[in-house]
Amino acid sequence: MNKWYIEKGPESDVVISSRVRLARNFKEYPFPHKPTPQMQKEIVDKTRDALFSGNQNMSRVFRFIDFSDLDMLDKAEFMEKHVVSKELLESDRYSGILLSEDEQISIMINEEDHLRIQCLAPGMQLTNAWNICNSIDDLLSEKIDFAWDENIGYLTSCPTNIGTAIRASVMMHLPALSMTGYIKPVLEALGKLGLAVRGLYGENTEASGNMFQFSNQITLGKSEEDILLSINNIARQIIEQERTLRQEIYKQKKYRLEDMVFRSYGILKNARIIDTVETLKRLSDLRLGVDLDIIKDIDITDINEMMLLVQPAGLQKKTSRMLKPGERDIYRAELVRNIMNKNKNP
Amino acid sequence: MNKWYIEKGPESDVVISSRVRLARNFKEYPFPHKPTPQMQKEIVDKTRDALFSGNQNMSRVFRFIDFSDLDMLDKAEFMEKHVVSKELLESDRYSGILLSEDEQISIMINEEDHLRIQCLAPGMQLTNAWNICNSIDDLLSEKIDFAWDENIGYLTSCPTNIGTAIRASVMMHLPALSMTGYIKPVLEALGKLGLAVRGLYGENTEASGNMFQFSNQITLGKSEEDILLSINNIARQIIEQERTLRQEIYKQKKYRLEDMVFRSYGILKNARIIDTVETLKRLSDLRLGVDLDIIKDIDITDINEMMLLVQPAGLQKKTSRMLKPGERDIYRAELVRNIMNKNKNP
Repeated sequence: MNKWYIEKGPESDVVISSRVRLARNFKEYPFPHKPTPQMQKEIVDKTRDALFSGNQNMSRVFRFIDFSDLDMLDKAEFMEKHVVSKELLESDRYSGILLSEDEQISIMINEEDHLRIQCLAPGMQLTNAWNICNSIDDLLSEKIDFAWDENIGYLTSCPTNIGTAIRASVMMHLPALSMTGYIKPVLEALGKLGLAVRGLYGENTEASGNMFQFSNQITLGKSEEDILLSINNIARQIIEQERTLRQEIYKQKKYRLEDMVFRSYGILKNARIIDTVETLKRLSDLRLGVDLDIIKDIDITDINEMMLLVQPAGLQKKTSRMLKPGERDIYRAELVRNIMNKNKNP
Repeated sequence: MNKWYIEKGPESDVVISSRVRLARNFKEYPFPHKPTPQMQKEIVDKTRDALFSGNQNMSRVFRFIDFSDLDMLDKAEFMEKHVVSKELLESDRYSGILLSEDEQISIMINEEDHLRIQCLAPGMQLTNAWNICNSIDDLLSEKIDFAWDENIGYLTSCPTNIGTAIRASVMMHLPALSMTGYIKPVLEALGKLGLAVRGLYGENTEASGNMFQFSNQITLGKSEEDILLSINNIARQIIEQERTLRQEIYKQKKYRLEDMVFRSYGILKNARIIDTVETLKRLSDLRLGVDLDIIKDIDITDINEMMLLVQPAGLQKKTSRMLKPGERDIYRAELVRNIMNKNKNP
């Protein structure tokens, strides 16, 4: 079964992925910064039970991963795939994840909240992601009594999540907006509309490879549907702006654009040493080239695969050993070359 | 018939070409800065006559080109091919060249001296080049009385050429010496040994593409054979130093070197806009890669061809029209791609 992040979704020329996550807490336990290890263990067990008991389907689709048991490399790889958060990675609480086979759905246990139900999907698919989260939430609610207040809604560790406790986000590839500098007014407008902007790996990360993640900041006083609709509308506008700009740049600076795209193509196909930042930049150029039909022998799904494999943990998992930083750059270049040249005529 | 500069000569891993030129002046005419246009015409006619009359072979091999008649593009292309000097290009005297079919031998008429007999050869071939110049000189001497003094030797316009009036030079590709910085002490030593160092296009040009031209400064008080022997010995030492360093760098920094070479290879194969300076730099990397057997599908002769074709005049001659600088970079990239990809498997 293919992992979700390799697949090509709707509006994949601009949208890499959509994500919805819900925060939930057990009514009967203190919030995650307080419980004893014993309580943490109980929360894990009760969540597994709520998902699996009486749901044969679920035990076929989901597996439980004892997160505290994993070594740092495995943990980091899950973060690189966006399956778990940085918070969970760095937490010393007893924690676990319930993960679907295609890695699209994950339930983090004992993260900042007792539960974080998350669904990822390729391309623009917020509604789908929300529907899946919602059904998992319904299922768990049958067995678990969640901390909930009639006036406020769901209660969460951090007040910024209170209410719907929903965070919806869209990861977009915006090379044309970035190149032209038009990204700046767009980001300012988004801030005024109450959206947060982050880089490829969540909070406190810079936009690498012209990737921007937009998400709602407001969780209170609006329904889930309204929040999703608003993000959806804003995302559609950005998609249109990016598309128009790409065509305009291509029309006005055809050779410059082709030169940029083909140089990155040539370097990805040939480099023997390449670091993560450069790889993401070159993959961004390549993605733009594929969308504009400048590059014909590379598929968006190849690029998606490379974007994940070239991260430090993914790389090291692939070689089954720890690599020194210098070795990583060599192995990354080899991996990229293999994927870039796989469609080569014999 | 292939032009000499495409061919691969001895020691071609380090030596691009060898050149010998002799300066000669008619005894009966004032030196070139003085004669009237009428005299200039006579000098041209007498030289043609001396070469051709009674020498059927010569009239098959050589053609006369009325240099004053050429447009700037044709003139500049001859200079890019090293067939004529910058001096001749910029001169407003009536001038001409007698040029062999393979463009290896040229006699410039009314340059700084009345005659400049020049022979170029691929790789390390100073002796061959000298023998050819010598035989042309002998042939011309049968009909022309050259300005010569028993004590001094040949008389020339510029005192730096007086005596043997020979200039022997070797164009070398020294990427390893350049990369490591060892080129600096080598150049200093050459200066002390009385050699001049220039870039790819003679006096006042910087070393582009790690190309260095070494030539004798002393023409007086030594025989032609001694001058050639001395340059030859020095060149052999530099060749050995460069070779040893290449192997050492490759051994110690295998991945770094391969990365540099393959990136240049990928860019030359894919760029859509490329200027002369970058092209020469990338071709230098490629040449090193071919020598070290890192690159297997490109031949030294392909690189020699590209080095000439990518020059502004060569480019414009190829398109048969004047190009704006921006257009040149686009057309240069196309030309390089075509040569780089010609051996591609179908």
